[in-house]
Amino acid sequence: MQTTTERLTLGDLPALARGCAVLGTGGGGQVGTGTLTAAKAIAEYGEVPLIPLSEVPDDGLILPLSGIGAPTVAHEMPMSGEEPVLIRDEVERLLGRPVAAVMASEIGGSNGVGPVAWAARLGLPLVDADGMGRAFPEVQMVAMYIADRPLDIVVLADVQGNVITLRPVDAMWSERIGRAVCVACGGTALMADYVLTAAQARGAVIEGSVSSALAIGRAAREGAEPVAGLCETLGATVLLHGKVIDVDRWTTGGFVRGSLVVDGTGEHQGRLLRVEIQNENLIAFEDGRLRASVPDLITVVDQKTAEAISTESLRYGQRVSVLSWPCDPIWRTERGLATVGPRAFGYDIDYTPVEELAHA
Amino acid sequence: MQTTTERLTLGDLPALARGCAVLGTGGGGQVGTGTLTAAKAIAEYGEVPLIPLSEVPDDGLILPLSGIGAPTVAHEMPMSGEEPVLIRDEVERLLGRPVAAVMASEIGGSNGVGPVAWAARLGLPLVDADGMGRAFPEVQMVAMYIADRPLDIVVLADVQGNVITLRPVDAMWSERIGRAVCVACGGTALMADYVLTAAQARGAVIEGSVSSALAIGRAAREGAEPVAGLCETLGATVLLHGKVIDVDRWTTGGFVRGSLVVDGTGEHQGRLLRVEIQNENLIAFEDGRLRASVPDLITVVDQKTAEAISTESLRYGQRVSVLSWPCDPIWRTERGLATVGPRAFGYDIDYTPVEELAHA
Repeated sequence: MQTTTERLTLGDLPALARGCAVLGTGGGGQVGTGTLTAAKAIAEYGEVPLIPLSEVPDDGLILPLSGIGAPTVAHEMPMSGEEPVLIRDEVERLLGRPVAAVMASEIGGSNGVGPVAWAARLGLPLVDADGMGRAFPEVQMVAMYIADRPLDIVVLADVQGNVITLRPVDAMWSERIGRAVCVACGGTALMADYVLTAAQARGAVIEGSVSSALAIGRAAREGAEPVAGLCETLGATVLLHGKVIDVDRWTTGGFVRGSLVVDGTGEHQGRLLRVEIQNENLIAFEDGRLRASVPDLITVVDQKTAEAISTESLRYGQRVSVLSWPCDPIWRTERGLATVGPRAFGYDIDYTPVEELAHA
Repeated sequence: MQTTTERLTLGDLPALARGCAVLGTGGGGQVGTGTLTAAKAIAEYGEVPLIPLSEVPDDGLILPLSGIGAPTVAHEMPMSGEEPVLIRDEVERLLGRPVAAVMASEIGGSNGVGPVAWAARLGLPLVDADGMGRAFPEVQMVAMYIADRPLDIVVLADVQGNVITLRPVDAMWSERIGRAVCVACGGTALMADYVLTAAQARGAVIEGSVSSALAIGRAAREGAEPVAGLCETLGATVLLHGKVIDVDRWTTGGFVRGSLVVDGTGEHQGRLLRVEIQNENLIAFEDGRLRASVPDLITVVDQKTAEAISTESLRYGQRVSVLSWPCDPIWRTERGLATVGPRAFGYDIDYTPVEELAHA
């Protein structure tokens, strides 16, 4: 799925947004905000070249960008638009050479669409890759960390114009300090972490994710049965078709935390599914039985349109389908599971791949 | 009182510590920790030249350093000793030239003694000046801010080795973000703010403060009536001689907050004084009547030895004298009072100089 699009245009944004929402597993921020920002930036600064990682020269500097913070805040306090400039300038000042391309740190949610705006603003190409292949809530939860790439600097910029640079002793400290900075900045900020050369990025990022999101977004829009079409494209299992009967959600410490209960309807009448949330949908239980868990993807979509519903948009009464499908293999490695498996989020549960749970 | 000492030696530390404790108005950290650290550093790296600001060439870079955080934490989690090196290296990397001298950001408390250790560790002279002439709890409460000097970078380093650089939009944001960083780092960190050339520092710092602290420390040790001798040196009023009958103190958001009640004894029998605290002693009331307030200095000393008692060492039953004396004139300017007057700490009270209150 490498480079199906050479330039990202205004016309690509709806499909990209739909795909990123699906890959967001509830998090990564509402795609609506990112799409508006990207459309405005393309109109103002021009279309964005989408290039495979292989096209970036070995010594080309890649700037992975993402919004950090609680999505509930991010969609009420939009960015100023100048954050990528502040970050790029600081990175170039610290590393003494120019940035060659922008990359999404996480393809899921608004953080998958925002890089189009950020790349347009900077007049740089966007690399067809990301650090997660989905969305995850914490700074160290990126493929670059799993691949043990150096985390020399982390740079944050906020809507007020504050710029903060961390030289953390490790990725856990970058999460801890970066999160505190983001809360002090009002709950949301733009962040660059794992600024790498293309040579360092090879084998340490998930390639083709932008093309993937575009393909998923297009699949979800076509056909008479959008949910079925989407499941086929994703290779996803339907955990439950039903109605949202409870949403428990609060914003704390820079995260949205909570849970969701779906009451089965139609063929799933009489069944209850509970999904637990930390920005993203982490884990799904039915009658105390594990149905799916991180790092596999769990997304709640509208039963009719197959549009993904983000954590902060969940409401009582919505008719939904809860889908789950396998994550990128990097997350199923020992270090991957230690970083983003159920225990990394405080659940005393062994990880079982969703495709095995589906057959159990 | 300029440069009474040319080199700060091990023998100077007890007097310096005593003087800094008095100027700490309860805050700035317990001098015991700073004194041990300074003694160790002098033994390891040599004595520290003490130079007047006038001796630093115009383009010489001055590094103002202070511990930031709750003193209750700082004296339980000592620094690693390498924080000044991490900060100096980062400042030199960012500004592209060497640091010429260290300065105390605040002369009060452990933050007045610590710079001896930090200068020794860096092999740099210590400037006989500071940013406060006392101790204050927040980052923007320095003379450099009142004099409107540029706050381009703020650099923090913690005991783990994390280094954090802020380019804040203003001093209030540096306080807000710096405080959050300090809490995330475990409640205490070393910080450089208002890194200035000597030319920029002239007229924007309080000169002679190290010599002043030494003189105060020596005065408090001599004579048969230490409290009376100390009052004479400081030009201080005794607000009350009495016994500590209540201490209310909690550590929150990177600060110690609380209050203290002293019950008059001897000639002050039957009188009650309440002192309110945010790291430092902020304000003193007697029967609802204002006796003294920030920015004037309020210090609680032992009735017998005239040793200052820091906020975190206050205990029920201590026999104390509460002293107050006038602050540096810079704090009585309009911008000074807006920054550190009673209203800056949330008290709906007009500032009246302590010498006027004493005569009322």
